[in-house]
Amino acid sequence: MKRVEFFFDLSSPYSYIAATQLPALVERTGAEVAWRPMVLFAVFKSSGNDMPARVPHKARWMGQDLQRWADHYGIPWKMSSHFPLNTVKAMRLILVDDAKAGAVALAAFRAMWAEDRDITQEAELRRIAELGGLDPTTALQKIEEPAIKDRLRANTDEAITRGAFGAPTMLVGDELFWGNDRLQFVEQALERIALRAK
Amino acid sequence: MKRVEFFFDLSSPYSYIAATQLPALVERTGAEVAWRPMVLFAVFKSSGNDMPARVPHKARWMGQDLQRWADHYGIPWKMSSHFPLNTVKAMRLILVDDAKAGAVALAAFRAMWAEDRDITQEAELRRIAELGGLDPTTALQKIEEPAIKDRLRANTDEAITRGAFGAPTMLVGDELFWGNDRLQFVEQALERIALRAK
Repeated sequence: MKRVEFFFDLSSPYSYIAATQLPALVERTGAEVAWRPMVLFAVFKSSGNDMPARVPHKARWMGQDLQRWADHYGIPWKMSSHFPLNTVKAMRLILVDDAKAGAVALAAFRAMWAEDRDITQEAELRRIAELGGLDPTTALQKIEEPAIKDRLRANTDEAITRGAFGAPTMLVGDELFWGNDRLQFVEQALERIALRAK
Repeated sequence: MKRVEFFFDLSSPYSYIAATQLPALVERTGAEVAWRPMVLFAVFKSSGNDMPARVPHKARWMGQDLQRWADHYGIPWKMSSHFPLNTVKAMRLILVDDAKAGAVALAAFRAMWAEDRDITQEAELRRIAELGGLDPTTALQKIEEPAIKDRLRANTDEAITRGAFGAPTMLVGDELFWGNDRLQFVEQALERIALRAK
C-alpha cells in the first residue's frame, strides 16, 4: 500500500540525486520503492518536452545546481564525460531481478554520475551486475531477451500514459511528483497514506 | 553587501510563491531584497527557452504542484482566469519608488495569483499602487514616462546578460538560483556572505 513508483532514466542526473535519497526515505517511512527505469528520450518526445540542457543558460545553471544538491546531501557528483549515451542496456539490468533492482540501479547511477564510467561497455555492465548482487553472465544474457526488453518499453509507455514529461517522475498512487526537489512532497504523500490506514 | 536580487515577472506563479517567502527570509537573514521585475517573454525568447506550460503533461502537473507549495507555505493560491496577460504596466508600478517596491510587488502578486484580479485594468493598477503606499494618480502618470519604461527594459536585458532563462531568477552576487524551490540555497549563499564578513 505504502509505495512510491520511481520512474527514471540513468542518463538523468536529477534522477541520480533523487535515487541516492530513497534508501533513507524508505528507512523513515517504511514505504516500498518500485524501481521503474524508462527511456527518457521517448518520454520527452511523446510529451512534447525538450531536453533541459538544450537551453545554454539552463545547462550552465544545471551544472552549478547539481553540485549544490550533491553538497547539500553530501554525495559524490561528477559530470559524465560520456553524456549523452545510450543507457538502455544498463536499464535492462535493473529489470533482471526485482529483489535486486535498487542495488543494481544505485550501482549504475554511481558509475554514471559519481565515477564517470562508460555504462554502455560490457565490462562495466558486468561490474554493475555484480555490485547489484546478480550473476554477471546470466544477467548479460537476460538483457538480450524479449521479456526484459518488453518490460523497459512497458515502463516507458506506462510512464507516458500516467502523465510523465521528465525524470525523475515519482508516483504515489495517482499523485505525480516531478524532480528530486519534490521528495519532501512524496514523503508527505506517503505519510498521508499511513494516516488513512490507521 | 548581504543582498539578493529577485528577478521576476508578475505573470510567473512560481515567482509569486517565492515572493511570499521573501519577507521571512529578510527577517531571518537580515538581507536586503532588490525587487527587479523583468519581461519573462523576452527572457524566454532570448535564452531559447519555452514557456513551461507549453507541454500539456507539465501544465497539468504545475497546477497540482503550485497547490502543493501553497499548502506547504499556508498561502492563498488560485489559478488566474486572466492568464496569459500583459503584466508590463503593473511591473512598471513596482519601479516607481524603490522604497515601496516590495509592498507594490506583493500587492500585485496577490491580486494576480490569490484574488484572480485583472491587473491590466486601470482601476486595479490604482488599487495596487494604493496598497503599496504610492499615490495612485502620480504613479499611473509615472508608468507612462520613458525613465520607468527604460528601467523595466534594462532589468530584462541585465537578467538575460547575467544568465536568466526563467523566473524567478535570484542572484546573490554572481551566483544564480532559479525557482522558488531553490530558496534554501539562496539563504545558504546569504549566510556564507555573513560568515565571510565576520
